[in-house]
Amino acid sequence: MTSILDTIDSPEQLRALTVPQMEQLAGEIRKEIIEKVSVRGGHIAPNLGVVELTMALHRVFNTPNDLLVWDIGHQAYVHKLLTGRRERFHTIRQFGGLSGYLRRDESPYDTFGASHASTSISAALGMAAARDLKGEDTKVVAIIGDGALTGGMALEAINNAGSMKKNLIIVLNDNDKSISDNVGALHQYLSQVRKVQTTPSYQRLRDMAKGSIERFPVLGDKAREAAGRAETSFKQFVMHSKSGAIFEELGIKFFGPFDGHDIPSMLDVFENVKHIEGPVMVQVVTKKGKGWEVAESDSTKWHGPGAYDYKTGIIKKNAGDPPTYTEVFANTLVEIAEKDPSVVGITAAMAEGTGLKKMHQRFPERYFDVGIAEQHAVTFAAGMATLGIKPVIAIYSTFMQRAFDQVMHDVCVQDLHVVFAMDRAGIVGEDGQTQHGVFDTAFMRILPHMKVMAPKDEEELRHMLYTAVYLDGPVALRYPRGKALGIEMSDELHMLEVGKAELLSPATLEEAERTDCAILAYGSTVAQAEIAAKELAQEGIKATIVNARWAKPLDEELFLHLAKTTRRIVTIEDHVLAGGFGSAVLELFEQHGLLRDIETRLIALPDKYVEHGAPTILKELYGLSSAHLKEVVREMLGTQQHTLA
Amino acid sequence: MTSILDTIDSPEQLRALTVPQMEQLAGEIRKEIIEKVSVRGGHIAPNLGVVELTMALHRVFNTPNDLLVWDIGHQAYVHKLLTGRRERFHTIRQFGGLSGYLRRDESPYDTFGASHASTSISAALGMAAARDLKGEDTKVVAIIGDGALTGGMALEAINNAGSMKKNLIIVLNDNDKSISDNVGALHQYLSQVRKVQTTPSYQRLRDMAKGSIERFPVLGDKAREAAGRAETSFKQFVMHSKSGAIFEELGIKFFGPFDGHDIPSMLDVFENVKHIEGPVMVQVVTKKGKGWEVAESDSTKWHGPGAYDYKTGIIKKNAGDPPTYTEVFANTLVEIAEKDPSVVGITAAMAEGTGLKKMHQRFPERYFDVGIAEQHAVTFAAGMATLGIKPVIAIYSTFMQRAFDQVMHDVCVQDLHVVFAMDRAGIVGEDGQTQHGVFDTAFMRILPHMKVMAPKDEEELRHMLYTAVYLDGPVALRYPRGKALGIEMSDELHMLEVGKAELLSPATLEEAERTDCAILAYGSTVAQAEIAAKELAQEGIKATIVNARWAKPLDEELFLHLAKTTRRIVTIEDHVLAGGFGSAVLELFEQHGLLRDIETRLIALPDKYVEHGAPTILKELYGLSSAHLKEVVREMLGTQQHTLA
Repeated sequence: MTSILDTIDSPEQLRALTVPQMEQLAGEIRKEIIEKVSVRGGHIAPNLGVVELTMALHRVFNTPNDLLVWDIGHQAYVHKLLTGRRERFHTIRQFGGLSGYLRRDESPYDTFGASHASTSISAALGMAAARDLKGEDTKVVAIIGDGALTGGMALEAINNAGSMKKNLIIVLNDNDKSISDNVGALHQYLSQVRKVQTTPSYQRLRDMAKGSIERFPVLGDKAREAAGRAETSFKQFVMHSKSGAIFEELGIKFFGPFDGHDIPSMLDVFENVKHIEGPVMVQVVTKKGKGWEVAESDSTKWHGPGAYDYKTGIIKKNAGDPPTYTEVFANTLVEIAEKDPSVVGITAAMAEGTGLKKMHQRFPERYFDVGIAEQHAVTFAAGMATLGIKPVIAIYSTFMQRAFDQVMHDVCVQDLHVVFAMDRAGIVGEDGQTQHGVFDTAFMRILPHMKVMAPKDEEELRHMLYTAVYLDGPVALRYPRGKALGIEMSDELHMLEVGKAELLSPATLEEAERTDCAILAYGSTVAQAEIAAKELAQEGIKATIVNARWAKPLDEELFLHLAKTTRRIVTIEDHVLAGGFGSAVLELFEQHGLLRDIETRLIALPDKYVEHGAPTILKELYGLSSAHLKEVVREMLGTQQHTLA
Repeated sequence: MTSILDTIDSPEQLRALTVPQMEQLAGEIRKEIIEKVSVRGGHIAPNLGVVELTMALHRVFNTPNDLLVWDIGHQAYVHKLLTGRRERFHTIRQFGGLSGYLRRDESPYDTFGASHASTSISAALGMAAARDLKGEDTKVVAIIGDGALTGGMALEAINNAGSMKKNLIIVLNDNDKSISDNVGALHQYLSQVRKVQTTPSYQRLRDMAKGSIERFPVLGDKAREAAGRAETSFKQFVMHSKSGAIFEELGIKFFGPFDGHDIPSMLDVFENVKHIEGPVMVQVVTKKGKGWEVAESDSTKWHGPGAYDYKTGIIKKNAGDPPTYTEVFANTLVEIAEKDPSVVGITAAMAEGTGLKKMHQRFPERYFDVGIAEQHAVTFAAGMATLGIKPVIAIYSTFMQRAFDQVMHDVCVQDLHVVFAMDRAGIVGEDGQTQHGVFDTAFMRILPHMKVMAPKDEEELRHMLYTAVYLDGPVALRYPRGKALGIEMSDELHMLEVGKAELLSPATLEEAERTDCAILAYGSTVAQAEIAAKELAQEGIKATIVNARWAKPLDEELFLHLAKTTRRIVTIEDHVLAGGFGSAVLELFEQHGLLRDIETRLIALPDKYVEHGAPTILKELYGLSSAHLKEVVREMLGTQQHTLA
């Protein structure tokens, strides 16, 4: 059979296909995704679930003039394949290749970038308001999952959309899932709506669409024809809905549920809703992983797997690999919770990603998944802390940004004891720009009462978590994505001293005083510093290596002493330079009037968004490598010649 | 008549009063608030509206063991008067006096501090979960306004509460208002609920409460008695509710509306709901400003007035006062919008506070009040920007924290042109800890693509706003609360050069090179710097004064040149030291290897939450005064003796 996908350069070609051809195309798209993504992994289940939905949207709406706004964007692979990016599709999530999310600078079809949840309705409503100011008649369509709908900003947007009465179509991609199983009352509500099969809503939809067309003769024959065509196939729909009462009460016309894998249904539904005035929500039921048995049967596992064998459906794992930081964190938390019934774990819909499902399994009553709701998660934790419970809230560094005000206003001002476990800190790799966790130390350390730390390895992570749980007040720890270093871990947990760094080499402070410089390394960059120091030693350069541990409070005594004795300080961190660990060290030296007496060099990320790609490539590119650290030390010592010898 | 208020040291005495005595007390409380607050101003209308509600809550619930969680806390004056703080009530909002909000360190009755909206349900749900883990039976009551309910985190919390099924009472203080008139679909919905008078809900409430009591015999006679007593007066209630369908659908039992000024009703309602299992919402209708005609008839004006004459109800204004920064901002925005139809104004329920009501009056179609929903506001603006509209979003500096992730993820990553007008930046004075806008420069400047500026006076604010509107990409400007300096303002607006500071004195760069030091002042502190320079000159010390204008990008050329020539740099800013303007200057000098050659001093706020009090007191206390600046300069120059002469 000839490949239809090969003939699709843009939605233009898609619009000429028959329904059977579209059905064939759906199969080809699934095959393409399953095969191409297998090499390096990516978002599988979300994309397999929206193949028909995406085709129908691009067919019915006049993209890119009509605006599709995808929430999160991890489900946009189909969209990419249909909008001229098939040739480059095999490069997805690789350095220099296509983004795994949406990017305005990648395609005019990508109307709004994303990767954090719950933003699409706000952005689409803004577009609709702008369109009306400009007197245009562009259609604006937000596509949002039922999981993302639990995020507060999506609810703020619905509240606003319901009263503004702009023409706006919200497609509720209802797959009954966040990454994990969905939680929350709204989820339970939608589950009910999905099941109810009493009053058919198609008649109402048809009537309203017809009415709109009559009210807007300017739309012309094509629209009329489309609506007319719709009527004939309308009765074939499987459309039942009691209500969507919540949304109707809030001023949004609600239609559905419709079968999101039935192409004729999807085409007819969208042909009709596009003529309805005011805000409309269309509930489309899809299945994550649809069309590939392995992904369909365990869509959580297949939400965003690593590399896999697409023939067998087996996700590749290297036996004997070290555990991930996430696993070490989760195991340690369970270990602490075993002995201390006041310790609880909180996640914002990331049971798997944060490892907290281990708390769920072991202590279900001390595990709280509050939904995609980082703001609520933090203040919920603060509420618990007022009664002496010790909440450990695990959120990716980039998502902690969502709750910055709650950290400040509800936790730090009141000096409440809440532990922030910031996973995916630093460069995260393939997820790119929006997902790197490279601002956390800066925005956390500016808050009074907050303490901030980062471990050099998985063993230290264990003791840092223990320390955080048994300190007082707000404590944040950040640790990287992915595999840990594979070092041996102790059985016993112990407290680390607050604000005390670790002198790694040389062995004593007396020896350190006589070295040529001191490298203060924060978090995961300690490893690079140790390599650099060893290699520098071979060139005759003696460097003191300090594992800083704390970005706040800093180890003032040690840092000041080393500054006074070695007179040369280099800092290195997996974080932007502005306001980061190195900046804090400068502030310290400035307060002690030391800057005139020493040389300083800060190694950190520049003032730009880091692209996507393998972490090793990115770290090399942005100077977080032992090679670059060595260069900096040589330059500071004025020994460049030496190294050229 | 003997004062009952004089006899109230704690809710214990309140519980012994008869209903007529409580009614008398209500009057005394209103009088006390109206008189005492008149001296320095404060939150009037919100407190007059909750007198009966607050008394009823403290009477029915066993505070402080039972936990009342007030949202925002500006309506807690009544609560303060009833919980042992009457003696100190006249000190409210003054330095060293009572806070105008809630503080855990002020009273055990203040279970959770606040001042930002929409946090109470999250905190209360956390407390309820903690209570259950501890096996206690404390009642937890969140009191939230209908305005705060539009904030996303409140909706996240409701979604979570509806599924967690913890015993939790949510009192919806429905006064039909944010500070401004309420907006949004939820508001319209509640307005409907308020009007509907079909199915009485009291029978259901009584039945459920009785049912609970029967299911929980452990509650004992007192509770039974309370419920029994309730039945007799129940039918007197004005209670009608079709539904509260939205909340019921989300798993929360809904009762109301009830008359929040009818003491017997309030007592009976709370006696009953306190025995109901699971999450419950009680809609209580109150009137802001209740009991004082002037405040009742214009509750927006009387939301938080300055000092006033309580006999006449006239708010004090000094004729000839300079305009506020807010007024200058708003007038300038309207002026720009007159000429440019692509300029729009966006507020998150702060039409009056931000001055944007002027946009509303002049260009209603280009004014958007999205409700208390800062997150949505920012992404809504980003959506507009994608279509070439120029949104100016005015949000208080402290509330911008709510949308930090949206600024990063939806605006900065995509380099969209959105203008952030951050009002109330720096020390705001009487509102205290949570309201000072002293983190904004730090959290904004760490984001790539962002530009950050602060004007030295109201005239410069005008040109900065104009500049921000006609630059590209994200731009933030911060300006202080309150009266501007009273300088003359120009008619014409002009662009300021990006990243260019202003040399204020001496007149030429050549002269500046020969001064003893350079003071780089950011924003409102320029005024102090100018005073200090004049006084230092009388001592023979020559200081260059620079109005930095930009915290990002810095005026690298000028700052580096002055560093190289004067060799002594002082920075001063109305912001925390960590990560702020001074820290950015240090980073700049470090990157250029200049720190060894110069002396630096950073003047900024310390790593602690600044108390409430008059701004002049606070600035003096924390060293943001010309006197302290002079001391720092003298110390740097080693001329302390000189000044003692």
